[in-house]
Amino acid sequence: MRKENIKTLTPPDLDNLSINTIRFLSIDAIQKANSGHPGLPMGAAAFAYVLWTRFLKHNPSNPHWFDRDRFILSAGHGSMLLYSLLYLTGYDLPLEQIKQFRQWGSIAPGHPERGLTPGVEVTTGPLGQGFGNGVGMAMAEAFLSARYNRPGHNIINHYTYGLVSDGDLMEGVAAEAASLAGHLRLGKLIYLYDDNRITLSAATDLTFTEDIKGRFKAYGWHTQSVEDGNDLAAVERAIRNAQRNKTRPSLILLRTHLGYGSPDKQDSFEAHGSPLGVEEVKRAKENLGWPVEPPFHVPEAALSHFRQAVEQGKSADLEWEKRFSVYAQAYPDLAQELHQVIQAGLPEGWDGDIPEFSSSAKGIATRVASGEIMNSIVSHLPTFIGGSADLNPSTFTALTGKGDFESPHETITDSQGVVGGGWQYSGSNLHFGVREHGMGAILNGLASHGGILPFGATFLIFSDYMRPSIRLAALMGLHVIYVLTHDSIALGEDGPTHQPVEQLLGLRSIPNMLVIRPADANETAAAWRAAIEHQDGPVALVLSRQKLPVLNLAKYPQLPLGVRSGGYILAQTHETSPEDIILIAAGSEVHLALAAREKLEAQGVRARVVSLPCWNLFDKQPVGYKEAVLPPGIPVLAIEAGVSLGWRPYVGPGIEVVGVDHFGASAPGEVVMQKYGFDVAPVTQRALSLLKGHKNIA
Amino acid sequence: MRKENIKTLTPPDLDNLSINTIRFLSIDAIQKANSGHPGLPMGAAAFAYVLWTRFLKHNPSNPHWFDRDRFILSAGHGSMLLYSLLYLTGYDLPLEQIKQFRQWGSIAPGHPERGLTPGVEVTTGPLGQGFGNGVGMAMAEAFLSARYNRPGHNIINHYTYGLVSDGDLMEGVAAEAASLAGHLRLGKLIYLYDDNRITLSAATDLTFTEDIKGRFKAYGWHTQSVEDGNDLAAVERAIRNAQRNKTRPSLILLRTHLGYGSPDKQDSFEAHGSPLGVEEVKRAKENLGWPVEPPFHVPEAALSHFRQAVEQGKSADLEWEKRFSVYAQAYPDLAQELHQVIQAGLPEGWDGDIPEFSSSAKGIATRVASGEIMNSIVSHLPTFIGGSADLNPSTFTALTGKGDFESPHETITDSQGVVGGGWQYSGSNLHFGVREHGMGAILNGLASHGGILPFGATFLIFSDYMRPSIRLAALMGLHVIYVLTHDSIALGEDGPTHQPVEQLLGLRSIPNMLVIRPADANETAAAWRAAIEHQDGPVALVLSRQKLPVLNLAKYPQLPLGVRSGGYILAQTHETSPEDIILIAAGSEVHLALAAREKLEAQGVRARVVSLPCWNLFDKQPVGYKEAVLPPGIPVLAIEAGVSLGWRPYVGPGIEVVGVDHFGASAPGEVVMQKYGFDVAPVTQRALSLLKGHKNIA
Repeated sequence: MRKENIKTLTPPDLDNLSINTIRFLSIDAIQKANSGHPGLPMGAAAFAYVLWTRFLKHNPSNPHWFDRDRFILSAGHGSMLLYSLLYLTGYDLPLEQIKQFRQWGSIAPGHPERGLTPGVEVTTGPLGQGFGNGVGMAMAEAFLSARYNRPGHNIINHYTYGLVSDGDLMEGVAAEAASLAGHLRLGKLIYLYDDNRITLSAATDLTFTEDIKGRFKAYGWHTQSVEDGNDLAAVERAIRNAQRNKTRPSLILLRTHLGYGSPDKQDSFEAHGSPLGVEEVKRAKENLGWPVEPPFHVPEAALSHFRQAVEQGKSADLEWEKRFSVYAQAYPDLAQELHQVIQAGLPEGWDGDIPEFSSSAKGIATRVASGEIMNSIVSHLPTFIGGSADLNPSTFTALTGKGDFESPHETITDSQGVVGGGWQYSGSNLHFGVREHGMGAILNGLASHGGILPFGATFLIFSDYMRPSIRLAALMGLHVIYVLTHDSIALGEDGPTHQPVEQLLGLRSIPNMLVIRPADANETAAAWRAAIEHQDGPVALVLSRQKLPVLNLAKYPQLPLGVRSGGYILAQTHETSPEDIILIAAGSEVHLALAAREKLEAQGVRARVVSLPCWNLFDKQPVGYKEAVLPPGIPVLAIEAGVSLGWRPYVGPGIEVVGVDHFGASAPGEVVMQKYGFDVAPVTQRALSLLKGHKNIA
Repeated sequence: MRKENIKTLTPPDLDNLSINTIRFLSIDAIQKANSGHPGLPMGAAAFAYVLWTRFLKHNPSNPHWFDRDRFILSAGHGSMLLYSLLYLTGYDLPLEQIKQFRQWGSIAPGHPERGLTPGVEVTTGPLGQGFGNGVGMAMAEAFLSARYNRPGHNIINHYTYGLVSDGDLMEGVAAEAASLAGHLRLGKLIYLYDDNRITLSAATDLTFTEDIKGRFKAYGWHTQSVEDGNDLAAVERAIRNAQRNKTRPSLILLRTHLGYGSPDKQDSFEAHGSPLGVEEVKRAKENLGWPVEPPFHVPEAALSHFRQAVEQGKSADLEWEKRFSVYAQAYPDLAQELHQVIQAGLPEGWDGDIPEFSSSAKGIATRVASGEIMNSIVSHLPTFIGGSADLNPSTFTALTGKGDFESPHETITDSQGVVGGGWQYSGSNLHFGVREHGMGAILNGLASHGGILPFGATFLIFSDYMRPSIRLAALMGLHVIYVLTHDSIALGEDGPTHQPVEQLLGLRSIPNMLVIRPADANETAAAWRAAIEHQDGPVALVLSRQKLPVLNLAKYPQLPLGVRSGGYILAQTHETSPEDIILIAAGSEVHLALAAREKLEAQGVRARVVSLPCWNLFDKQPVGYKEAVLPPGIPVLAIEAGVSLGWRPYVGPGIEVVGVDHFGASAPGEVVMQKYGFDVAPVTQRALSLLKGHKNIA
């Protein structure tokens, strides 16, 4: 075993020792788990080391320090690189956990998971997502600094760094986010591209020969190449240059070698996704002059070098707290507001201006009602920001008078030489362009940054484009609100490419996700209340293109609370005697159920109408409530213009769903609905048949 | 009304008259429907006219002529532009249908739909998809020409043209496909970019200020700018240049004006997605010297000019048929093979080499079995081509010895001066890079081109990335096969970002889609047979990462046919006496069901095991068959490592599902499965509880 002479270590030795510590800690953990991706930590250790020890502003003792730099490992498969850095710099990630890498219950899981491991900003692994998240974080920083900083008070002032891989740069979601980041001139976004030219299955020359630098230049990025990613001075220079360029996001292309140090597997895809193997780990250690035994060897000198981050972090955080106090004295209202948004608190009376919609047969589309409601909320929630993927005129998601989030034409440098955002970054209306997936990933970045309550809008059908990001929002428990309009075949003429059929079920099936499809304007108001207050996961509001009658709140006083329960009895014959049949529906089909009920009543059939705007909320109600709404033994007919598949757990004993189990068609919406059986007469008929069958059985 | 003097029309007059015919036919149809997108047809009419009348090789009388140029309207919202061109050039799209634009039953629906309207190559509307489809078509042409052409016999030799919009170029799916197209040097792909600088909601300077030309150059494309998209000579020159550049795909940026000719709405987003309005239509007509009345005015001179396409097309098609005959004499085997693949016919004995897997307790992962099966098929199906999104080592989708589909390093020009593909385009292994969505769109292009049976592979979880393309494959009824491996939480250590939970239900809910999740290697063989023979829609094969026992075909002879029925009785106690309980499962959980059955039998409980690899196929069986497999009145326990939601229609009267209604976790697969209750003891216990509850009720 090599004898370490700690005292005489000179900086280059110490650098090298520290970098190899990252490498072999990572490799040993992967080898012990017999699972993982060794290539990235070995190849990227040196430049990651430079970033983490010479630039990153963070406080390992307080991972939630609000003004920390954000670091995103977009290439989440390199998780051990991040875990090594977190452990070494003193986060609450003990070595014992790293020895349990990828095992049940460990906080060092296969890919980084936000909320599980201190210091992990976002859950990554699905490629391209982290890239988009970083753009969202930089937008959050730009917005908050524009809103809250004042001359001499740069309270919000941090960088967003990311480590991105070939795979990230091939993914379309990253391309969308990159184009928008360039347009927005997000100068404090700095990505380090681990240019190792090897993907999981091959060298990049098999599929990825584009001029990456040229592409990012075309997006408006500042680009630099570092010929040797192990050249610490060159890496440091490049990061410093990137920081200096304040009006363009930066991509630093660092030429590295996948599996650096492994004699047999360096620069081979074999080093990408499988452990090196015991023998090759040994040879790599010998090759880089590292003791073969014991595994998980952490030299004291390296550890104490890394652990300087603890004291540095504490003092930087403290210094910021002091500056915040001075700021709070100078701008008490702003400071209080900022404090509240950092805590994600809702101010008293935030929903006081939400309109109550008057009963109306002609009605109003729920997308239009939603727009009014959003505008009534935004004055109370200053960091409620968002926009659509080029569909504002259709989704009604413009925040009136709140300005557009756009890059300042000139940069503003204050007396300290620090750039604050120009005023245009203080606009609340985000414009994503026709980039749904980029929007989804950016929303996750905005939400995970903290201080922001973001929303994004598109047609329900195009939620498919951002489904991977929606899933990650749910997995991370991020408070993101999706406004998804044009919610059924009733959108009409645009036809089957635009008519959602299976999307409702698809969204409802994502764990930890609320999907609310309100039946009218007042259910929409209640849905927005629920969406704002539900802070531990994403919420999708699914809204109609077409006008829907507004129900009379005097007649249906239970509506607002009912929506919050997910489902409720909207109409019934007698409170005491049992009904013959239950019609259950969501969204626009609730009105159809009400109309069918009248027909049934005229024929002496007692029918109950249950409005079920949110399955997920209803599922969580006590059994007693659920059975009061849907008493066992009464036949149920479900009505929704979407696939019937998912409704079936809610119906029975006679299982009947009026649904759409095929694609839509281009025609006026009311024609399509009628052709597909969404009309009072056929629905009434279905109910009577169901009832007849039930009686025959009973 | 303006008097037309047909005889004296000189070419520029005739061009202008023809272009305005396109414009106003489109505008009148949109106005009559009171729905649609007028801006694009007005702005793009001129360059589309040049392409269609001076370049496009097509036969309106035979839209399926195999060697036609393909034209894709990627900006599908401009559908009326395409319908106008189809009607005017003589396709079987009568003017009466255009008058019924966007109405129920019309073959001129809101967005172009493949299969509905003669001459529509692909269904477009969701932006970016058509862009990717065209890349797939150009790849199909490159592959088929490399395989079938011989010196002097350029049987396959056509261009793929596309009209793309701002929105298309903002979408990530197009970015992915563009990068791959540049890498592959698809020289016969020519896209005309309708650079009108206005999107649905705003001017592009709000979100889209990148250097598009620079970006495409970086991808390796040939790029040109035409300053005035109405300058016919300049457009013609640019297309000719693009054709001449044989080693790079071409993007021609045509500066146009959305809503060209509309005095009030030209260059405004108001012309994008809504009809101009009666008054503005009138003013636009006056502005461009067009008779205000009657609507749908088609000048004789313009019509007969366009209709020359009919005779030209017939004669080009005939000439090709003659050349094919000569080719067939020179290369009878090749010609026969080509004929067969054009007809999408399966040669006799195509499945003769599919292995039968021997019973084995240790078993084999279904992904590995699938790889063997694919390689046994490919020698019989020469145009069965495909690959993965950078996951070949994991998805087992490499076709051994079939070469890689890559661009030839040099172009090959034969005596006629026509470029044929170099041999590398004849490789069957497509490499998509880390571009799932691009892959999905490209697969649709390969399939819709004809002559190709494409497959694409990734992990099941990442099917989310290409979900919009999968949906379009289903909507178009395209024969695309998806190989989706790592099908459950049992994939283990990669954790929740990689563990599919809701994806199975999500895919099963897409109309017109087969999802098959086989339980072992022999079910996988049967699944592949079903997948190849199911030609009217996409098929997803959902396969395990982990090894699964191979069932003994001597003991379970019903297995192969059973898979083809979607579901079947795998094990039961007596054929005649009823069972106490049914355990129903798919994929890896079938083995768990079999094990639980043994435990139950030991306790005197008669249990049946039903394997249900494909809901969609099972749903289509006669009621008698379904009730024989799942007799009413017997309690059913469903077991699948995915969300329980969708299983419920199949279970009852006691509704029980052993499922995963939350996200997964990082740990070895067998640990995760066991922690989540997928183990014999708890499953047996659940079955006994269900049975007890059922007896108490009955």
